[in-house]
Amino acid sequence: MRVEIWSDIACPWCYIGKARFEKGLAEFAHRDEVEVVHRSFELDPSRAKGDTALVIDMLAEKYGRSREEAAAMEANVAANAQSEGLGYRTEGRDHGNTFDIHRLLHLAKARGRQDELLTLAYRANFAEERSVFDDEVLVALAEEAGLDADEARAVLADPEAYADDVRTDEREAAELGANAVPFFVLDRRYGIAGGQPSEVFVQALEQAWKDRPATALTTVGGDAAACDADGACELP
Amino acid sequence: MRVEIWSDIACPWCYIGKARFEKGLAEFAHRDEVEVVHRSFELDPSRAKGDTALVIDMLAEKYGRSREEAAAMEANVAANAQSEGLGYRTEGRDHGNTFDIHRLLHLAKARGRQDELLTLAYRANFAEERSVFDDEVLVALAEEAGLDADEARAVLADPEAYADDVRTDEREAAELGANAVPFFVLDRRYGIAGGQPSEVFVQALEQAWKDRPATALTTVGGDAAACDADGACELP
Repeated sequence: MRVEIWSDIACPWCYIGKARFEKGLAEFAHRDEVEVVHRSFELDPSRAKGDTALVIDMLAEKYGRSREEAAAMEANVAANAQSEGLGYRTEGRDHGNTFDIHRLLHLAKARGRQDELLTLAYRANFAEERSVFDDEVLVALAEEAGLDADEARAVLADPEAYADDVRTDEREAAELGANAVPFFVLDRRYGIAGGQPSEVFVQALEQAWKDRPATALTTVGGDAAACDADGACELP
Repeated sequence: MRVEIWSDIACPWCYIGKARFEKGLAEFAHRDEVEVVHRSFELDPSRAKGDTALVIDMLAEKYGRSREEAAAMEANVAANAQSEGLGYRTEGRDHGNTFDIHRLLHLAKARGRQDELLTLAYRANFAEERSVFDDEVLVALAEEAGLDADEARAVLADPEAYADDVRTDEREAAELGANAVPFFVLDRRYGIAGGQPSEVFVQALEQAWKDRPATALTTVGGDAAACDADGACELP
Protein backbone atom coordinates (compact mmCIF):
# COMPACT_ATOMS: atom_id res chain seq x y z
CA MET A 1 0.00 0.00 0.00
CA ARG A 2 1.26 3.46 -0.77
CA VAL A 3 0.64 6.60 1.27
CA GLU A 4 1.46 9.94 -0.32
CA ILE A 5 1.67 12.96 1.97
CA TRP A 6 1.47 16.44 0.48
CA SER A 7 2.97 18.96 2.87
CA ASP A 8 5.15 22.01 3.28
CA ILE A 9 8.04 22.50 5.69
CA ALA A 10 6.53 25.86 6.64
CA CYS A 11 3.22 24.24 7.67
CA PRO A 12 2.91 23.54 11.41
CA TRP A 13 -0.05 21.19 10.93
CA CYS A 14 2.06 19.16 8.51
CA TYR A 15 4.78 18.83 11.16
CA ILE A 16 2.20 17.76 13.75
CA GLY A 17 0.19 15.68 11.26
CA LYS A 18 3.30 13.72 10.25
CA ALA A 19 3.84 12.70 13.90
CA ARG A 20 0.17 11.72 14.27
CA PHE A 21 0.23 9.74 11.04
CA GLU A 22 3.39 7.92 12.14
CA LYS A 23 1.78 7.09 15.48
CA GLY A 24 -1.23 5.67 13.60
CA LEU A 25 1.01 3.78 11.18
CA ALA A 26 2.94 2.21 14.09
CA GLU A 27 -0.35 0.69 15.30
CA PHE A 28 -1.32 -0.65 11.87
CA ALA A 29 -0.79 -4.41 11.52
CA HIS A 30 0.46 -4.21 7.90
CA ARG A 31 2.78 -1.23 8.50
CA ASP A 32 5.71 -3.12 6.93
CA GLU A 33 3.85 -3.21 3.62
CA VAL A 34 3.20 0.53 3.56
CA GLU A 35 5.41 2.79 1.47
CA VAL A 36 5.33 6.49 2.42
CA VAL A 37 6.12 9.17 -0.17
CA HIS A 38 6.48 12.89 0.49
CA ARG A 39 4.91 15.24 -2.06
CA SER A 40 5.56 18.96 -2.46
CA PHE A 41 3.10 21.75 -1.69
CA GLU A 42 4.02 25.39 -1.11
CA LEU A 43 2.13 27.61 1.31
CA ASP A 44 3.60 30.83 -0.03
CA PRO A 45 4.81 30.25 -3.61
CA SER A 46 4.60 33.91 -4.64
CA ARG A 47 7.06 35.06 -1.99
CA ALA A 48 10.50 35.72 -3.47
CA LYS A 49 13.42 33.54 -2.46
CA GLY A 50 15.39 35.35 0.23
CA ASP A 51 12.37 37.40 1.35
CA THR A 52 11.93 36.03 4.85
CA ALA A 53 9.90 37.40 7.74
CA LEU A 54 9.44 36.44 11.35
CA VAL A 55 6.48 34.05 11.62
CA ILE A 56 4.84 36.19 14.33
CA ASP A 57 5.04 39.30 12.10
CA MET A 58 3.74 37.36 9.09
CA LEU A 59 0.79 36.01 11.11
CA ALA A 60 -0.05 39.45 12.57
CA GLU A 61 -0.09 40.95 9.07
CA LYS A 62 -1.97 38.09 7.40
CA TYR A 63 -4.73 37.92 10.01
CA GLY A 64 -4.76 41.65 10.87
CA ARG A 65 -3.97 40.95 14.50
CA SER A 66 -1.60 42.41 17.08
CA ARG A 67 1.77 40.76 17.66
CA GLU A 68 0.42 39.55 21.03
CA GLU A 69 -2.52 37.85 19.36
CA ALA A 70 -0.23 36.31 16.74
CA ALA A 71 2.02 35.06 19.54
CA ALA A 72 -1.01 33.47 21.22
CA MET A 73 -1.86 31.68 17.94
CA GLU A 74 1.67 30.30 17.81
CA ALA A 75 1.48 29.25 21.48
CA ASN A 76 -1.69 27.32 20.67
CA VAL A 77 0.00 25.46 17.81
CA ALA A 78 3.04 24.86 20.03
CA ALA A 79 0.83 23.21 22.66
CA ASN A 80 -0.51 20.83 19.99
CA ALA A 81 3.03 20.04 18.87
CA GLN A 82 4.22 19.47 22.41
CA SER A 83 1.34 17.09 23.10
CA GLU A 84 2.81 14.95 20.28
CA GLY A 85 6.26 15.13 21.88
CA LEU A 86 7.53 17.63 19.29
CA GLY A 87 9.67 20.66 20.05
CA TYR A 88 8.23 24.01 18.92
CA ARG A 89 9.82 27.47 19.24
CA THR A 90 7.16 30.16 19.56
CA GLU A 91 9.58 33.02 18.86
CA GLY A 92 12.24 33.79 16.30
CA ARG A 93 11.07 31.37 13.60
CA ASP A 94 11.44 32.45 9.96
CA HIS A 95 8.84 32.25 7.22
CA GLY A 96 9.75 32.23 3.53
CA ASN A 97 9.57 30.55 0.14
CA THR A 98 10.03 26.75 0.34
CA PHE A 99 10.54 25.86 -3.33
CA ASP A 100 14.26 25.10 -2.85
CA ILE A 101 13.59 22.90 0.16
CA HIS A 102 11.15 20.88 -1.94
CA ARG A 103 13.72 20.58 -4.74
CA LEU A 104 16.21 19.25 -2.20
CA LEU A 105 13.61 16.82 -0.83
CA HIS A 106 13.28 15.43 -4.36
CA LEU A 107 17.05 14.92 -4.56
CA ALA A 108 16.76 13.14 -1.19
CA LYS A 109 13.95 10.99 -2.60
CA ALA A 110 16.15 9.99 -5.53
CA ARG A 111 18.85 8.98 -3.04
CA GLY A 112 16.54 7.10 -0.67
CA ARG A 113 16.92 9.74 2.10
CA GLN A 114 13.69 11.66 1.81
CA ASP A 115 12.16 10.85 5.17
CA GLU A 116 15.48 11.55 6.89
CA LEU A 117 15.76 15.02 5.32
CA LEU A 118 12.10 15.83 5.85
CA THR A 119 12.33 14.96 9.55
CA LEU A 120 15.49 17.03 9.99
CA ALA A 121 14.06 20.00 8.05
CA TYR A 122 10.88 20.03 10.14
CA ARG A 123 12.91 19.88 13.32
CA ALA A 124 15.22 22.69 12.15
CA ASN A 125 12.28 24.91 11.18
CA PHE A 126 10.07 24.34 14.18
CA ALA A 127 12.28 23.29 17.07
CA GLU A 128 15.79 24.57 16.45
CA GLU A 129 17.57 27.85 15.94
CA ARG A 130 18.29 27.02 12.30
CA SER A 131 16.68 28.81 9.37
CA VAL A 132 15.68 26.46 6.54
CA PHE A 133 15.67 29.55 4.29
CA ASP A 134 19.47 29.65 4.46
CA ASP A 135 21.19 27.54 1.78
CA GLU A 136 24.10 26.60 4.05
CA VAL A 137 21.66 25.31 6.67
CA LEU A 138 19.98 23.24 3.94
CA VAL A 139 23.31 21.81 2.82
CA ALA A 140 24.13 20.89 6.43
CA LEU A 141 20.72 19.24 6.86
CA ALA A 142 21.20 17.35 3.59
CA GLU A 143 24.55 16.06 4.83
CA GLU A 144 23.03 15.02 8.18
CA ALA A 145 20.36 13.15 6.20
CA GLY A 146 23.08 11.14 4.45
CA LEU A 147 23.28 13.09 1.20
CA ASP A 148 26.43 14.30 -0.46
CA ALA A 149 26.99 17.96 0.49
CA ASP A 150 28.42 18.89 -2.93
CA GLU A 151 25.47 17.30 -4.70
CA ALA A 152 23.02 19.17 -2.44
CA ARG A 153 24.89 22.43 -3.10
CA ALA A 154 24.77 21.81 -6.87
CA VAL A 155 20.99 21.24 -6.73
CA LEU A 156 20.46 24.46 -4.77
CA ALA A 157 22.65 26.38 -7.23
CA ASP A 158 20.66 25.19 -10.26
CA PRO A 159 17.09 26.59 -10.02
CA GLU A 160 15.78 24.01 -12.51
CA ALA A 161 17.15 20.93 -10.70
CA TYR A 162 14.14 18.87 -9.55
CA ALA A 163 11.91 21.90 -10.20
CA ASP A 164 9.66 19.85 -12.50
CA ASP A 165 9.22 17.25 -9.76
CA VAL A 166 7.98 19.93 -7.36
CA ARG A 167 5.60 21.30 -10.00
CA THR A 168 4.30 17.82 -10.88
CA ASP A 169 3.52 17.16 -7.21
CA GLU A 170 1.69 20.46 -6.96
CA ARG A 171 -0.31 19.83 -10.14
CA GLU A 172 -1.29 16.40 -8.81
CA ALA A 173 -2.43 17.94 -5.51
CA ALA A 174 -4.73 20.23 -7.48
CA GLU A 175 -6.02 17.30 -9.58
CA LEU A 176 -6.79 15.37 -6.41
CA GLY A 177 -8.68 18.33 -4.99
CA ALA A 178 -6.15 19.12 -2.25
CA ASN A 179 -6.06 22.86 -1.59
CA ALA A 180 -4.64 22.63 1.93
CA VAL A 181 -2.01 20.52 3.65
CA PRO A 182 -1.19 18.11 5.16
CA PHE A 183 -3.07 15.95 2.70
CA PHE A 184 -2.72 12.18 2.93
CA VAL A 185 -3.64 9.91 0.01
CA LEU A 186 -3.87 6.13 0.43
CA ASP A 187 -3.38 4.11 -2.75
CA ARG A 188 -4.87 7.03 -4.72
CA ARG A 189 -8.26 6.01 -3.35
CA TYR A 190 -8.68 7.61 0.08
CA GLY A 191 -7.92 11.21 1.00
CA ILE A 192 -7.37 12.49 4.55
CA ALA A 193 -7.15 16.26 4.99
CA GLY A 194 -5.39 17.95 7.88
CA GLY A 195 -3.53 16.88 10.99
CA GLN A 196 -6.14 14.36 12.10
CA PRO A 197 -5.86 12.36 15.36
CA SER A 198 -3.79 9.20 14.95
CA GLU A 199 -6.93 7.02 15.33
CA VAL A 200 -8.28 8.45 12.06
CA PHE A 201 -5.12 7.32 10.29
CA VAL A 202 -5.36 3.84 11.79
CA GLN A 203 -8.97 3.55 10.64
CA ALA A 204 -8.18 4.83 7.17
CA LEU A 205 -5.22 2.45 6.79
CA GLU A 206 -7.38 -0.48 7.88
CA GLN A 207 -10.19 0.51 5.52
CA ALA A 208 -7.86 0.96 2.56
CA TRP A 209 -6.17 -2.34 3.32
CA LYS A 210 -9.47 -4.22 3.58
CA ASP A 211 -10.83 -3.03 0.24
CA ARG A 212 -7.59 -2.75 -1.71
CA PRO A 213 -8.07 -3.69 -5.35
CA ALA A 214 -8.23 -7.36 -6.26
CA THR A 215 -4.90 -8.72 -7.34
CA ALA A 216 -6.35 -10.25 -10.50
CA LEU A 217 -4.56 -8.60 -13.42
CA THR A 218 -5.75 -8.05 -16.95
CA THR A 219 -3.28 -9.83 -19.20
CA VAL A 220 -1.79 -7.98 -22.16
CA GLY A 221 0.23 -9.57 -24.98
CA GLY A 222 0.46 -13.11 -26.34
CA ASP A 223 2.96 -15.85 -25.54
CA ALA A 224 6.51 -14.67 -25.10
CA ALA A 225 9.74 -16.24 -23.95
CA ALA A 226 10.21 -16.38 -20.17
CA CYS A 227 12.02 -18.31 -17.43
CA ASP A 228 10.04 -20.10 -14.72
CA ALA A 229 10.68 -20.77 -11.04
CA ASP A 230 12.26 -24.14 -11.88
CA GLY A 231 14.88 -22.24 -13.85
CA ALA A 232 13.49 -23.48 -17.17
CA CYS A 233 13.74 -20.84 -19.88
CA GLU A 234 11.22 -21.19 -22.68
CA LEU A 235 13.24 -20.99 -25.87
CA PRO A 236 11.86 -19.66 -29.10
CA MET B 1 1.79 5.38 -13.30
CA ARG B 2 3.87 2.65 -11.76
CA VAL B 3 5.44 -0.31 -13.57
CA GLU B 4 6.78 -3.15 -11.45
CA ILE B 5 9.07 -5.65 -13.14
CA TRP B 6 9.67 -9.03 -11.54
CA SER B 7 12.88 -10.53 -12.84
CA ASP B 8 16.05 -12.43 -12.05
CA ILE B 9 19.58 -11.53 -13.01
CA ALA B 10 20.06 -15.15 -14.15
CA CYS B 11 17.12 -14.91 -16.58
CA PRO B 12 18.12 -14.11 -20.17
CA TRP B 13 14.55 -13.20 -21.17
CA CYS B 14 14.50 -10.67 -18.33
CA TYR B 15 17.68 -9.08 -19.67
CA ILE B 16 16.20 -8.94 -23.17
CA GLY B 17 12.72 -8.02 -21.92
CA LYS B 18 14.09 -5.07 -19.95
CA ALA B 19 15.62 -3.64 -23.15
CA ARG B 20 12.37 -4.19 -25.06
CA PHE B 21 10.31 -2.59 -22.28
CA GLU B 22 12.64 0.42 -22.20
CA LYS B 23 12.35 0.77 -25.97
CA GLY B 24 8.56 0.74 -25.60
CA LEU B 25 8.67 3.19 -22.69
CA ALA B 26 10.81 5.61 -24.71
CA GLU B 27 8.00 5.76 -27.31
CA PHE B 28 5.28 6.35 -24.70
CA ALA B 29 4.10 9.97 -24.53
CA HIS B 30 3.73 10.00 -20.72
CA ARG B 31 7.06 8.27 -20.03
CA ASP B 32 8.09 11.03 -17.60
CA GLU B 33 5.18 10.13 -15.36
CA VAL B 34 6.08 6.43 -15.19
CA GLU B 35 7.94 5.09 -12.18
CA VAL B 36 9.71 1.76 -12.71
CA VAL B 37 10.37 -0.58 -9.77
CA HIS B 38 12.40 -3.78 -9.86
CA ARG B 39 10.99 -6.75 -7.94
CA SER B 40 12.82 -9.92 -6.95
CA PHE B 41 12.22 -13.39 -8.38
CA GLU B 42 14.66 -16.30 -8.16
CA LEU B 43 14.98 -18.90 -10.90
CA ASP B 44 16.91 -21.36 -8.77
CA PRO B 45 16.21 -20.61 -5.08
CA SER B 46 17.06 -24.13 -3.86
CA ARG B 47 20.63 -23.98 -5.15
CA ALA B 48 23.11 -23.32 -2.33
CA LYS B 49 25.07 -20.08 -2.30
CA GLY B 50 28.50 -20.73 -3.75
CA ASP B 51 27.27 -23.72 -5.79
CA THR B 52 27.80 -22.42 -9.30
CA ALA B 53 27.84 -24.26 -12.61
CA LEU B 54 28.54 -23.27 -16.19
CA VAL B 55 25.29 -22.26 -17.86
CA ILE B 56 25.88 -24.68 -20.76
CA ASP B 57 26.37 -27.61 -18.34
CA MET B 58 23.30 -26.57 -16.32
CA LEU B 59 21.17 -26.39 -19.48
CA ALA B 60 22.43 -29.76 -20.78
CA GLU B 61 21.57 -31.40 -17.47
CA LYS B 62 18.19 -29.67 -16.99
CA TYR B 63 16.93 -30.45 -20.50
CA GLY B 64 18.73 -33.81 -20.89
CA ARG B 65 20.59 -32.56 -23.95
CA SER B 66 24.15 -32.74 -25.19
CA ARG B 67 26.53 -29.85 -24.55
CA GLU B 68 26.30 -29.02 -28.27
CA GLU B 69 22.52 -28.79 -28.12
CA ALA B 70 22.74 -26.65 -24.96
CA ALA B 71 25.23 -24.40 -26.75
CA ALA B 72 22.79 -24.04 -29.65
CA MET B 73 20.06 -22.99 -27.19
CA GLU B 74 22.36 -20.30 -25.80
CA ALA B 75 23.28 -19.16 -29.32
CA ASN B 76 19.58 -18.72 -30.06
CA VAL B 77 19.08 -16.54 -26.96
CA ALA B 78 22.26 -14.62 -27.83
CA ALA B 79 20.85 -13.81 -31.28
CA ASN B 80 17.73 -12.37 -29.64
CA ALA B 81 19.87 -10.30 -27.25
CA GLN B 82 22.06 -9.06 -30.07
CA SER B 83 19.05 -7.97 -32.08
CA GLU B 84 18.26 -5.63 -29.16
CA GLY B 85 21.83 -4.31 -29.19
CA LEU B 86 22.79 -6.27 -26.08
CA GLY B 87 26.05 -8.13 -25.60
CA TYR B 88 25.73 -11.86 -24.81
CA ARG B 89 28.52 -14.34 -24.12
CA THR B 90 27.54 -17.83 -25.21
CA GLU B 91 30.37 -19.52 -23.31
CA GLY B 92 31.84 -19.36 -19.82
CA ARG B 93 28.82 -17.83 -18.09
CA ASP B 94 28.06 -18.95 -14.52
CA HIS B 95 24.72 -20.01 -13.11
CA GLY B 96 23.96 -19.93 -9.37
CA ASN B 97 21.77 -18.68 -6.53
CA THR B 98 20.74 -15.04 -6.94
CA PHE B 99 19.32 -14.29 -3.47
CA ASP B 100 22.27 -12.08 -2.47
CA ILE B 101 22.08 -10.11 -5.71
CA HIS B 102 18.41 -9.40 -4.99
CA ARG B 103 19.27 -8.30 -1.44
CA LEU B 104 21.84 -5.91 -2.88
CA LEU B 105 19.29 -4.62 -5.42
CA HIS B 106 17.04 -3.75 -2.47
CA LEU B 107 19.86 -1.80 -0.82
CA ALA B 108 20.29 -0.03 -4.17
CA LYS B 109 16.56 0.70 -4.24
CA ALA B 110 16.78 2.26 -0.78
CA ARG B 111 19.61 4.45 -2.05
CA GLY B 112 17.92 5.43 -5.33
CA ARG B 113 20.39 3.40 -7.44
CA GLN B 114 18.39 0.32 -8.31
CA ASP B 115 18.18 0.71 -12.06
CA GLU B 116 21.90 1.54 -12.20
CA LEU B 117 22.85 -1.64 -10.32
CA LEU B 118 20.37 -3.81 -12.21
CA THR B 119 21.72 -2.64 -15.56
CA LEU B 120 25.33 -3.24 -14.48
CA ALA B 121 24.52 -6.66 -13.00
CA TYR B 122 22.78 -7.81 -16.17
CA ARG B 123 25.69 -6.61 -18.27
CA ALA B 124 28.21 -8.34 -16.00
CA ASN B 125 26.28 -11.62 -16.07
CA PHE B 126 25.44 -11.77 -19.76
CA ALA B 127 28.03 -9.71 -21.59
CA GLU B 128 31.19 -9.51 -19.50
CA GLU B 129 33.74 -11.83 -17.97
CA ARG B 130 32.51 -11.07 -14.45
CA SER B 131 30.68 -13.57 -12.25
CA VAL B 132 27.79 -12.02 -10.32
CA PHE B 133 28.08 -15.01 -7.96
CA ASP B 134 31.34 -13.58 -6.59
CA ASP B 135 30.83 -11.18 -3.65
CA GLU B 136 33.78 -9.00 -4.66
CA VAL B 137 32.33 -8.58 -8.15
CA LEU B 138 29.02 -7.57 -6.57
CA VAL B 139 30.74 -5.00 -4.33
CA ALA B 140 32.52 -3.57 -7.38
CA LEU B 141 29.24 -3.40 -9.32
CA ALA B 142 27.56 -1.72 -6.33
CA GLU B 143 30.31 0.88 -6.23
CA GLU B 144 30.02 1.47 -9.99
CA ALA B 145 26.27 1.97 -9.46
CA GLY B 146 27.02 4.75 -6.98
CA LEU B 147 26.61 2.81 -3.73
CA ASP B 148 29.02 2.84 -0.84
CA ALA B 149 31.30 -0.21 -1.12
CA ASP B 150 31.44 -0.76 2.66
CA GLU B 151 27.68 -0.61 2.93
CA ALA B 152 27.32 -3.13 0.07
CA ARG B 153 29.87 -5.42 1.75
CA ALA B 154 27.98 -5.19 5.07
CA VAL B 155 24.71 -6.16 3.37
CA LEU B 156 26.34 -9.17 1.69
CA ALA B 157 27.90 -10.23 5.01
CA ASP B 158 24.55 -10.17 6.84
CA PRO B 159 22.26 -12.85 5.33
CA GLU B 160 19.15 -11.21 6.81
CA ALA B 161 19.81 -7.72 5.42
CA TYR B 162 16.99 -6.94 2.95
CA ALA B 163 16.08 -10.66 2.94
CA ASP B 164 12.48 -9.87 3.91
CA ASP B 165 12.20 -7.45 0.99
CA VAL B 166 13.21 -10.22 -1.42
CA ARG B 167 10.71 -12.63 0.15
CA THR B 168 7.92 -10.03 0.09
CA ASP B 169 8.52 -9.46 -3.63
CA GLU B 170 8.41 -13.19 -4.27
CA ARG B 171 5.21 -13.65 -2.24
CA GLU B 172 3.60 -10.82 -4.18
CA ALA B 173 4.61 -12.41 -7.48
CA ALA B 174 2.81 -15.58 -6.40
CA GLU B 175 -0.26 -13.59 -5.30
CA LEU B 176 -0.35 -11.87 -8.68
CA GLY B 177 -0.17 -15.22 -10.45
CA ALA B 178 3.33 -14.73 -11.83
CA ASN B 179 5.16 -18.04 -12.02
CA ALA B 180 7.68 -17.01 -14.67
CA VAL B 181 9.72 -13.90 -15.41
CA PRO B 182 10.06 -11.27 -16.68
CA PHE B 183 6.63 -10.21 -15.43
CA PHE B 184 5.54 -6.61 -15.86
CA VAL B 185 2.70 -5.13 -13.80
CA LEU B 186 1.18 -1.74 -14.66
CA ASP B 187 -0.50 0.07 -11.75
CA ARG B 188 -1.38 -3.35 -10.29
CA ARG B 189 -4.01 -3.66 -13.00
CA TYR B 190 -2.34 -5.04 -16.12
CA GLY B 191 0.08 -7.95 -16.31
CA ILE B 192 2.48 -8.63 -19.17
CA ALA B 193 4.31 -11.96 -19.12
CA GLY B 194 7.62 -12.58 -20.86
CA GLY B 195 9.99 -10.64 -23.04
CA GLN B 196 7.30 -9.28 -25.37
CA PRO B 197 8.09 -7.10 -28.41
CA SER B 198 8.38 -3.40 -27.52
CA GLU B 199 5.09 -2.63 -29.35
CA VAL B 200 3.20 -4.73 -26.79
CA PHE B 201 4.65 -2.56 -24.01
CA VAL B 202 3.69 0.64 -25.82
CA GLN B 203 0.12 -0.63 -26.26
CA ALA B 204 -0.13 -1.76 -22.64
CA LEU B 205 1.21 1.58 -21.35
CA GLU B 206 -1.27 3.47 -23.49
CA GLN B 207 -4.16 1.27 -22.38
CA ALA B 208 -3.27 1.56 -18.68
CA TRP B 209 -2.86 5.32 -19.04
CA LYS B 210 -6.21 5.74 -20.78
CA ASP B 211 -8.24 3.87 -18.18
CA ARG B 212 -6.26 4.74 -15.05
CA PRO B 213 -8.51 5.13 -12.02
CA ALA B 214 -10.45 8.35 -11.56
CA THR B 215 -8.68 10.78 -9.27
CA ALA B 216 -11.76 11.32 -7.11
CA LEU B 217 -10.84 10.25 -3.58
CA THR B 218 -13.03 8.94 -0.81
CA THR B 219 -12.61 11.32 2.12
CA VAL B 220 -11.83 9.91 5.57
CA GLY B 221 -11.95 11.88 8.86
CA GLY B 222 -13.71 15.07 9.92
CA ASP B 223 -12.43 18.64 9.99
CA ALA B 224 -8.85 18.99 11.13
CA ALA B 225 -6.34 21.82 11.25
CA ALA B 226 -4.51 22.50 8.01
CA CYS B 227 -2.69 25.25 6.11
CA ASP B 228 -3.94 26.37 2.71
CA ALA B 229 -2.25 27.60 -0.44
CA ASP B 230 -2.61 31.22 0.72
CA GLY B 231 -0.48 30.35 3.72
CA ALA B 232 -3.42 30.57 6.09
CA CYS B 233 -3.26 27.99 8.84
CA GLU B 234 -6.59 27.02 10.35
CA LEU B 235 -6.08 27.34 14.08
CA PRO B 236 -8.00 25.30 16.61
